[in-house]
Formats: sequence, C-alpha cells, structure tokens
Amino acid sequence: MTALFITFEGPEGAGKTTVLQHIAQRMQHDDVLFTREPGGIDIAEKIREVILNKEHTAMHERTEALLYAAARAQHFFEKVKPALERGQHVLCDRFIDSSLAYQGYARGIGMDAVKGINEFAIGEYMPDVTIFFDIQPEDGLARIAAAAERETNRLDVEGLAFHHKVYEGYERVVKENPQRVRVVNANQPLEQVVADVWDILSEVLDVK
Amino acid sequence: MTALFITFEGPEGAGKTTVLQHIAQRMQHDDVLFTREPGGIDIAEKIREVILNKEHTAMHERTEALLYAAARAQHFFEKVKPALERGQHVLCDRFIDSSLAYQGYARGIGMDAVKGINEFAIGEYMPDVTIFFDIQPEDGLARIAAAAERETNRLDVEGLAFHHKVYEGYERVVKENPQRVRVVNANQPLEQVVADVWDILSEVLDVK
Repeated sequence: MTALFITFEGPEGAGKTTVLQHIAQRMQHDDVLFTREPGGIDIAEKIREVILNKEHTAMHERTEALLYAAARAQHFFEKVKPALERGQHVLCDRFIDSSLAYQGYARGIGMDAVKGINEFAIGEYMPDVTIFFDIQPEDGLARIAAAAERETNRLDVEGLAFHHKVYEGYERVVKENPQRVRVVNANQPLEQVVADVWDILSEVLDVK
Repeated sequence: MTALFITFEGPEGAGKTTVLQHIAQRMQHDDVLFTREPGGIDIAEKIREVILNKEHTAMHERTEALLYAAARAQHFFEKVKPALERGQHVLCDRFIDSSLAYQGYARGIGMDAVKGINEFAIGEYMPDVTIFFDIQPEDGLARIAAAAERETNRLDVEGLAFHHKVYEGYERVVKENPQRVRVVNANQPLEQVVADVWDILSEVLDVK
C-alpha cells in the first residue's frame, strides 16, 4: 500500500489538535507520522516566529502569505516527504488549505494567487485526503475562550468578521475539492468527533 | 515628472554598493531615496537573518526563494512604494533580478517559477530601469577576497561554479529585458564605473 498524506483543516477552536491526540493514541502501533506545521523543523519554527510576533503589526499580507509558504516548503521537504518515501502515512495538522482560507480568502489576496505560491512551495505534492473540521466561528472561538491555557498570537486577536471569512474560504475549498476533502461535524462531543474521524481513517488507511 | 524606480544588479564583488555611495553623495541635493534589501525594515531584516544564518544548512532552495520574495514584499510596500507615491525617485541595491539569477537560474528552480512568486510579492511594480554591473565571477570574487572588512555569509561560501551560474542567469535577464536593463562594464576603475552609471542616471532622471 502506498503511504498516504492526510491533512486536517478547520477554523480556530475546531478541536483538531485534541482529536488528533486521541487518534495518535489509538494508532500507536501503526507506522504513522503525526505532525503539524511548523513541525519542530528549526528553520520553519524561525519563520513562524517572524509571522506570529505581535510586534510585527506592519506585516504586509503578501509577506505573511509568502512566509507561510516558505515554512510549509521546509516542513514538507525536511519531514513529510522523507516519511512518505519511507512508507509511513503522514497525518498533518494544517496545510495548504489553511493558507487558501486565511491568506487567500479572508485577507483578500485571492485563493488562486495563494494557491500559486503554495504550488511553488510543494510542487505536485497535494494531500491525498483532507479532513475538514466543520464548526461555526462563534462556536470555535467560544471554545478557545473557555480554554484558558492556550496562548494567543497575532492571528487570534483578529475580529469575528475575519474568522467568518476564514470559514467562507474553507467552504469554497470543500466545494471545489469534493474528491479530496471530507467534512466532519466538529460541533459535537469530543468522543463523537474522534469516532467520525476514525471512520474516515479506517476507510482510507490500513488501520483497525 | 513621475518618480522612477531604478534597481542595481550584479554578481558578488561587482562594486554596486561602493558606486552607489558615490552616486548618493553626488545626488545629495536631489529628492532621491537610496535603499537596499532588506532596507532597515524590521520584518524584512528578521527574514534576512533566517536566510543568511550559517546554521541553516538544511534550508530547501524553495524555502530560500520564498523567503527572499517575502522580504522583498515587505521592503517594497513599507519603504519603496510610499517613496514613489511621495514623488521620490528610488534607487535600490538588488531586487527581483537577483532572485531570478541566484534562486531561479543558479539554484536550478527555474526563472519562470521564481518570477511567478516575485510577481505575487510585488504585483505590477517592476523597476522602470535596471543597471547591471557586468563583471566576471572570478574578478568579482577576487575583489571580495581583497576587501578584508566584509563579513562572509551563507551565500559567499558557495563555490565558483555557483557564481558562474549566477552570471549566466544575469546574462539571460539582460537578454530578455532589453527595454529595462542597461549594462555597465564593472571591471573598470571605480571612477569610470561611477561616471558610466551617472551618464545613465542623467539620461533617465532629472539630475545634474
């Protein structure tokens, strides 16, 4: 079986990270790499620091989009691609669709333009399957507000209108990629979201 | 008169920086902005630090190209474009052609692909005039070796073959952009190079 590249997407507070922790526990005997951008890759972490630094209020939206693409290229070629070539499935928390929704749609640069620089970054290596965590911005942000331990960054402090645009951007990604993107209702109790994600993974991967 | 955006390009040791210092002195009564990437723009300087850090030996060439484009966007929109809009001519040490020659041609990514991400970075704002400092890599590198005070970075330590490719990349830029690019023989005594550059500037700008 060919190794698959599976990405997890969704707005803030959708619960991706928590659900992936549960999935990882359940899969600990399978040969799967769990990662997230910037994925502990030193160069990508340094780029991330520049992006999220709260002092960088003058950052142009095109600079931001190019920095995300740069960090993505490094994480992909240094960590994801070698794993796929070793035969490991890779499950990655956020990838190109985040840039399409956040920078392309919500920041107003245009999804096609942002897709262009991301295709430059990763070449032909699009995810095989993407699981979208579907939750309205209000519900997601309410979860974040309730979880006091999570530190805020330069993107968290954007207003609700921005997060609504992110959601609309994701809706377009879902609509335009019916073959690749699977939708999970993320506004359910944790156990149910884990179960729904598990069903999809069982179907596409050789796991039990 | 519309403000013009003029860029200076060439291989390592071509003498651009020294010549520009002389030009700046001669132009001190004219309303001209002299700048260079990253141009003292805080965000662009931070990006530059990531690019040139000698520890980042694992940097993928696509990451590098995207980082240069990101720094370029920030420097352009935060410093160059506002100056042009105020009516100042802008003279900039290195710009898009450096990426075409270094990342596009010498690193082998492809000049069209690198042009694509740079068009994303700066939109329609190509330089009005570009002055190419023409010098063979051997002669340029010999100058750098003789100038002991200049610190080396991650690009200076590339081998001669790399710098030959950079030169070939520039040759293509010159050939493909006859309207925009003017060539100066940089392998002459400093005073002569300054005089040749001054002739071009006198022709395109309202300076004496």
